[in-house]
Amino acid sequence: MDYLADERKKAVFDVDSMKIVWAGSRQAFEVSDRISKLVAADPGFRKDDRPMLPRKELFRNTLRKAAYAWKRIIDLRLSEEEASRLRFYVDEIAYTDLHWGMFVPALKGQGTDEQQAKWLPLAYKMQIIGCYAQTELGHGSNVQGLETTATFDADKDEFVIHSPTLTSSKWWPGGLGKVSTHAVVYARLITDGKDHGVHGFIVQLRSLEDHTPLPGITVGDIGMKFGNGGYNTMDNGVLRFDHVRIPRNQMLMKVSQVTREGKYKQSDVPRQLVYGTMVFVRQQIVKDASCALSRAVCIATRYSAVRRQFGSQNGGSETQVIDYKTQQSRLFPLLASAYAFRFVGEWLEWLYKDVIQRLQANDFSTLPEAHACTAGLKSITTSITADGIEECRKLCGGHGYLCSSGLPELFAAYVPACTYEGDNTVLLLQVARFLMKTVSQLGSGKQPVGTTAYMGRLEHLMQSRCTAQRAEDWLKPSQVLEAFEARAAKMSVSCAQNLSKFSNPEEGFAELSADLVEAAVAHCQLIVVSKFIEKLQQDIPGEGVKQQLEALCGIYYLSLLHKHQGDFLATSYLTPKQAVLANDQLRALYAKVRPNAIALVDAFNYTDHYLGSILGRYDGNVYPKLYEAAWKEPLNESVVPDGYKEYIRPLLKQQLHSARL
Amino acid sequence: MDYLADERKKAVFDVDSMKIVWAGSRQAFEVSDRISKLVAADPGFRKDDRPMLPRKELFRNTLRKAAYAWKRIIDLRLSEEEASRLRFYVDEIAYTDLHWGMFVPALKGQGTDEQQAKWLPLAYKMQIIGCYAQTELGHGSNVQGLETTATFDADKDEFVIHSPTLTSSKWWPGGLGKVSTHAVVYARLITDGKDHGVHGFIVQLRSLEDHTPLPGITVGDIGMKFGNGGYNTMDNGVLRFDHVRIPRNQMLMKVSQVTREGKYKQSDVPRQLVYGTMVFVRQQIVKDASCALSRAVCIATRYSAVRRQFGSQNGGSETQVIDYKTQQSRLFPLLASAYAFRFVGEWLEWLYKDVIQRLQANDFSTLPEAHACTAGLKSITTSITADGIEECRKLCGGHGYLCSSGLPELFAAYVPACTYEGDNTVLLLQVARFLMKTVSQLGSGKQPVGTTAYMGRLEHLMQSRCTAQRAEDWLKPSQVLEAFEARAAKMSVSCAQNLSKFSNPEEGFAELSADLVEAAVAHCQLIVVSKFIEKLQQDIPGEGVKQQLEALCGIYYLSLLHKHQGDFLATSYLTPKQAVLANDQLRALYAKVRPNAIALVDAFNYTDHYLGSILGRYDGNVYPKLYEAAWKEPLNESVVPDGYKEYIRPLLKQQLHSARL
Repeated sequence: MDYLADERKKAVFDVDSMKIVWAGSRQAFEVSDRISKLVAADPGFRKDDRPMLPRKELFRNTLRKAAYAWKRIIDLRLSEEEASRLRFYVDEIAYTDLHWGMFVPALKGQGTDEQQAKWLPLAYKMQIIGCYAQTELGHGSNVQGLETTATFDADKDEFVIHSPTLTSSKWWPGGLGKVSTHAVVYARLITDGKDHGVHGFIVQLRSLEDHTPLPGITVGDIGMKFGNGGYNTMDNGVLRFDHVRIPRNQMLMKVSQVTREGKYKQSDVPRQLVYGTMVFVRQQIVKDASCALSRAVCIATRYSAVRRQFGSQNGGSETQVIDYKTQQSRLFPLLASAYAFRFVGEWLEWLYKDVIQRLQANDFSTLPEAHACTAGLKSITTSITADGIEECRKLCGGHGYLCSSGLPELFAAYVPACTYEGDNTVLLLQVARFLMKTVSQLGSGKQPVGTTAYMGRLEHLMQSRCTAQRAEDWLKPSQVLEAFEARAAKMSVSCAQNLSKFSNPEEGFAELSADLVEAAVAHCQLIVVSKFIEKLQQDIPGEGVKQQLEALCGIYYLSLLHKHQGDFLATSYLTPKQAVLANDQLRALYAKVRPNAIALVDAFNYTDHYLGSILGRYDGNVYPKLYEAAWKEPLNESVVPDGYKEYIRPLLKQQLHSARL
Repeated sequence: MDYLADERKKAVFDVDSMKIVWAGSRQAFEVSDRISKLVAADPGFRKDDRPMLPRKELFRNTLRKAAYAWKRIIDLRLSEEEASRLRFYVDEIAYTDLHWGMFVPALKGQGTDEQQAKWLPLAYKMQIIGCYAQTELGHGSNVQGLETTATFDADKDEFVIHSPTLTSSKWWPGGLGKVSTHAVVYARLITDGKDHGVHGFIVQLRSLEDHTPLPGITVGDIGMKFGNGGYNTMDNGVLRFDHVRIPRNQMLMKVSQVTREGKYKQSDVPRQLVYGTMVFVRQQIVKDASCALSRAVCIATRYSAVRRQFGSQNGGSETQVIDYKTQQSRLFPLLASAYAFRFVGEWLEWLYKDVIQRLQANDFSTLPEAHACTAGLKSITTSITADGIEECRKLCGGHGYLCSSGLPELFAAYVPACTYEGDNTVLLLQVARFLMKTVSQLGSGKQPVGTTAYMGRLEHLMQSRCTAQRAEDWLKPSQVLEAFEARAAKMSVSCAQNLSKFSNPEEGFAELSADLVEAAVAHCQLIVVSKFIEKLQQDIPGEGVKQQLEALCGIYYLSLLHKHQGDFLATSYLTPKQAVLANDQLRALYAKVRPNAIALVDAFNYTDHYLGSILGRYDGNVYPKLYEAAWKEPLNESVVPDGYKEYIRPLLKQQLHSARL
């Protein structure tokens, strides 16, 4: 029985075509579809018991799943793409994420050919398991401030890795606490008493025979984190070195080297290559944002169609909560954001390839712009996603608070994305710094490129005023782009003007940093809006698909315009009346999307296994399943709870004086 | 060793005097101080192990603590105020919260004198334990839609309580799942086939001898909720009735009655009394908001002074993160909000007493205004607090994600406040409805009272324009009040004008509900601002105390003005230039508060036990204690993790084919 069948019938577009748009291509859709169903059908990947498991059982179960997934990957001879999809749909954060996502790329990106030839085959077969040991107890964002030392001992041709202070303890690396046999360790390189800054070293941590830590190594798990399941399936670790020796050839030497004599030197390989890796990692994070947000939105949208409250007339059914404008005005902008992030993620994939091609041709010209734009997009997409998941949870009312809704764990597992790979505020300040530089160079005739090209039309943008006269005028892409460009440009220019009043620019930057962050956000939102609009200029097949995407695009930018109305009005691009027209158009688009809402989340093609939510079930059969699930709670194993005799009965019987408490 | 001693020396006000302002009176401070230290010193109330306990152990431990707390209350002959403080500082959500907070008040508020005489002594001695069974699986906000039935059987002079559908199952009531012996059950009263709507009934659920559910009753826990500890110490329950019979005199009959013959009638007691209870419960929630927010702010502020990152010059220490303007612009508005909510909570306490006095004198005139204002304040304070706790967690960087920071559990335990006792959006719509009524009655000469008095000056407010010319002008209370009044008034009037364009007012209200919610928020923010300003017009003793509160008040309203700049500009009360001046003044106030920040959170007088956060420790000794705590993690009980032989070794040794997974 499909309780959402009526909703699905309402849709005026072809869902199957939209699935392909969402997946990126027919081929990507087919792989995802096949692998997600394979995972969902396999009881070995069950995950609904996760919130109930105590840490040790939870972790043991993750070890089992990671091994089982690897076995399936080998047995089924899955391709790299398929294997990665399988890990995605298994949906259990594990040490393997760091092994494949950070350890292997670090070897590839920073190891010499020789080093890669030695270590990569071991890593590819998982004969060694690696993690990425950078962050320390006292140092996160400021990587240059790391304290761990790697001192070259020329006599023995070895590095001595050491943790000189408590705050130099490695702290947070995933996979480190209990599993990894090896790590890429970041430490200050010291030769001949001279500090050459932070470099990467391959260090074996545990015996390959019995898994005990090697001499001089103290290692463990750092303890419970947010949520029940969430990141607690991961062994984020603490690591201290007491003069641990490694051969010289375990320093990652693609970019800089230490010779047998202890001389430090740079190789021919451009240092900028590391930025390429950063662009890669961050474009992946933007894609992950669209996945996490779409998952939360899928749950909240389906449940909003099932849930009814108020508005019953003459004993009929109550109103579906999705029909309330307050619900729509919170939910639909998030639905639109999920699509927006998907498309900007696609574009970032292109950008990464473009950057790599240029780097290989020794063209570093677009790197600062690409770096700023991935940093900024990482920041705004992860912030909106984290808040958006919690908003979706609230949109599910009380039941969203149950773990069986899937949303608490999704939130708890997602929020670290706002902090890792660059704290979101620190990243926006980097974007702001780049914007200020761009503005300051305008006079010198240097033409801004890529996502800052609009700054080249600064004179026009500073003077231009919105011409919208009717609500429908807000559907014109050119009108919208100019509004977002004018807002972003004016905010940047205003910051630059205020900065110029300070005699010490760094002092000015510090003093005005909150405003600079806002200018950076305006710039990044413009990027997302413009990439969404560009996507719609392409040919998009499928009945009604493009129209739906146009409506979502409109909701995306008009809800941003409403939320940041203050920026648009303060820069005098808009009149208050034009802002009202924009809001009228936004409401009209909500009405247009409403009948298509369920189909628009169906297009994500998530299995019930992956969603992991009773509220988000495809068939909408929410209440019987919630009721059923309650009885699986361990507390319900006995009717009278453990502790009754000791702590409830003596209280009721007024016999606490003799009770042992 | 006090690592924050230097910070404490910087303060330019008398912290002890501020502690008394925060507590409300010297007497309140002394009770809180004494009881919080008593709890902190008692190992029976230890709570740092909570996130590590599996549900059954966690729950058993809560039962122990609840009994132990009750024993201490009896042994020490604590007064009602002291007992309530003790439960507060024990800081473990438990069935007792519902017994004292909902069951007892329901008996008092809705029971006849006779019923109170029978049941209250039992409840006061905890010879029975009660809960409040209202919410159902299918019905939360819409109380009038509850499905449970209480059908009068005149033959036997009994009510038959029954759950006719799955969605009528009681679902969520705290204390129901495993502990309560009794419940106040809300059910549709049916006499002679006529439905008289929802009423309360006292129903015994479990045997007082062996705690087994009585015949016809199915009861259990609804399962894991958000977070590790959090609300999982509470047995939120599910309850179904299969024709359960209770005597007629167990219907709560203060307001309406069923006679021996089955006649339904109203008593002389005004129905409005129930609103009095609602005002009471919601003012308590506003106070709780200031507690929860101040707790998170205390942790984030102290840790921001301990944590250093970037900005090291010549090998010196790095910059304390609290010195970054980006950190200040996120943290200090929350610090100011904690104080603002404290004072508006004090005022609500007065309002409640005023309402009760009037009700007793049959004066219902202020009730709608008092009801709207408590509903609205409940909504905005809980929303800001929930978001604020998470923001404080993010302000602690990566380490805020550890349970030992205290913030994840504080968040998980707090967020239900946005949903219970009225969903925050539903409440704002009630406020909006009241505002629209107020506007519509202005023409009829009816003078708005209390928090809507400003609407009486509508003509002036609609025309007035801000006169601020320098940043300092934003320190004038009259200037600020007018700005917030003009904004709120103009938003309400604009909604009313747009509503008048609809021929069907209800349709208009539904269509414009998102705008109406914004108007309601503007009105409620004005209330908080005006009560903060009123507080500062009183005599406040203590060196420098008033000056600090003035700075916090300024931060509160100027950060709101900045956040909602769009509203202020759209209503044309402000020019963009004046908004910039306000923002300049805000930055100046951050600088003023900065040296006092640690002392301002010390004034909350929280013990380390209550805070439950390594990052928020009074002495700032964060890193050694984080390191120490990690080793208590159960996963660290063995060096080689459980599961190594089965799931890691076979993988490393390429022997998965023969492994049992």
